[in-house]
Amino acid sequence: MNTITQLFKIQYPIIQGGMIWNSGYKLAAAVSNAGGLGLIGAGSMYPDVLRSHIQKCKKATAKPFGVNVPMLYPNIQEIMDILVEEEVKIVFTSAGNPKTWTSFLKEQGMTVVHVVSSSKFALKAQEAGVDAVVAEGFEAGGHNGREETTTLTLIPMVKAQINIPLIAAGGVATGRGMLAVMVLGADGVQMGSRFAASDESSSHADFKNAIIEMEEGGTHLTLKELAPVRLIKNKFYNDLQELYMKSPTKEDLVALLGRARAKRGMFEGDLVEGELEIGQIAGLINEIKPVKEIIEEIINEFEQAKRELPEF
Amino acid sequence: MNTITQLFKIQYPIIQGGMIWNSGYKLAAAVSNAGGLGLIGAGSMYPDVLRSHIQKCKKATAKPFGVNVPMLYPNIQEIMDILVEEEVKIVFTSAGNPKTWTSFLKEQGMTVVHVVSSSKFALKAQEAGVDAVVAEGFEAGGHNGREETTTLTLIPMVKAQINIPLIAAGGVATGRGMLAVMVLGADGVQMGSRFAASDESSSHADFKNAIIEMEEGGTHLTLKELAPVRLIKNKFYNDLQELYMKSPTKEDLVALLGRARAKRGMFEGDLVEGELEIGQIAGLINEIKPVKEIIEEIINEFEQAKRELPEF
Repeated sequence: MNTITQLFKIQYPIIQGGMIWNSGYKLAAAVSNAGGLGLIGAGSMYPDVLRSHIQKCKKATAKPFGVNVPMLYPNIQEIMDILVEEEVKIVFTSAGNPKTWTSFLKEQGMTVVHVVSSSKFALKAQEAGVDAVVAEGFEAGGHNGREETTTLTLIPMVKAQINIPLIAAGGVATGRGMLAVMVLGADGVQMGSRFAASDESSSHADFKNAIIEMEEGGTHLTLKELAPVRLIKNKFYNDLQELYMKSPTKEDLVALLGRARAKRGMFEGDLVEGELEIGQIAGLINEIKPVKEIIEEIINEFEQAKRELPEF
Repeated sequence: MNTITQLFKIQYPIIQGGMIWNSGYKLAAAVSNAGGLGLIGAGSMYPDVLRSHIQKCKKATAKPFGVNVPMLYPNIQEIMDILVEEEVKIVFTSAGNPKTWTSFLKEQGMTVVHVVSSSKFALKAQEAGVDAVVAEGFEAGGHNGREETTTLTLIPMVKAQINIPLIAAGGVATGRGMLAVMVLGADGVQMGSRFAASDESSSHADFKNAIIEMEEGGTHLTLKELAPVRLIKNKFYNDLQELYMKSPTKEDLVALLGRARAKRGMFEGDLVEGELEIGQIAGLINEIKPVKEIIEEIINEFEQAKRELPEF
């Protein structure tokens, strides 16, 4: 038991990050059934789709699970109402001000966690009354902070500022990675990329293959003028880089990005024109596996690393 | 004993990074005398200045020390001749192809280490015959790799590729940081920022104060069109950002950079117009201390962290 396993009533302090087009109820339920905390990623779901995933998740697992809600979601009030109606117990909020919804969610008796990329926002989240924070470093996939602070430096700095439980995210996909960030002060880990390349992820098989085939250095944080996002360097990324050579306006970038690029890449498997969001640690992920096996391997490696500590 | 302490015949696997305008013989000798490996940073020294620092270092310590040589140095042949003449035993090369000088240095009986920012270059260094590699992540201060791979993700990927000793750099300034990267597979650490803010660093007192006063998020990796470098966000940095708004050519950037910006910032203490190179972890460094105290604290924290491993 530690503060994270107690907070969520789970066996291992491993949270599966809410990822658009990857983390539907199948992935969330599989992670929760394997002893971690699964999160349904609401970011790519229409309200009725989210409701259906929550209902299916309740049937697929008797264990605690949660929902990740990017607060910039257009139908945010409708989403929050669904969480209440469906009696969701755990909510991870991201991409927005934690003050806006934390009180409301806490009044419903929910456990609330907010995702941050700096100590300053971690403190704001703590002041807003969240139960824990996820601190996510520069190496993480998808949307990311503007200060570009890496997980290795971010975790001890956040730890020094807050007194609520701390979950490390960005760059963790193994038991050794988990032990490393917990040595730095994290009470648990949130992993995205590792679970994106699982059997139970709802993303397209071709995207999963792209993750395991991706080599070190295969991602880049781009679109900083809009919202920084870490992508695989595919043709769409190269088109972006070409546009950048021409000193584009924000409007030019928005026009090239267009609509539904992320769905096209991750859900429909268009590896050429789609947006493929993944973390740097994908360079270390070489096999698509069932969630249960992933979690068992991580825990085994974590325990083994504890027995083989460095000496000199 | 481990592979790094054996290789260099030192007590602790802590290497002080060679840093322009910071690591003269006083810093290098202090680190070596305290049980780590001190490096004289040749990058900011004229050949005769380097020779003098090597001679003074030999008098200031009976322990092993080394010299860091950026291979893009204009007088590189002259520098290498000095290393031979002065019987330097340990050379760290950086910023260049390890094949160019490794054989020559090895033939002189020197221990040779090369600094890399990717597994690909780590393998190239191993093939060139170096004794160890330093793998340096995106969070490190000063000049940095183009792939922007962070230390947390870089170390396990390099470890999986090479079979010579591995030194982790970038984002490490504490005993917990040291344990974290060694759990990931490093055999030792190279630290720059922590030693830049030491009594024995040759940098200006005002620069040292800027390091300890710098807050999280206070650095940025910029000048990527020339050679990526991590700087404190001061007026010079802001001027660069303004220039970037105007779609500058490389020549525009070179013109704004001008000459001797790094000396002006770090050695002369011009915090406004100078180039102030430091790592992200400076946000965690709050006190200028003697080297001996820094190393003792790191080792104590490292040992304590090993006794307080995470449980759940």
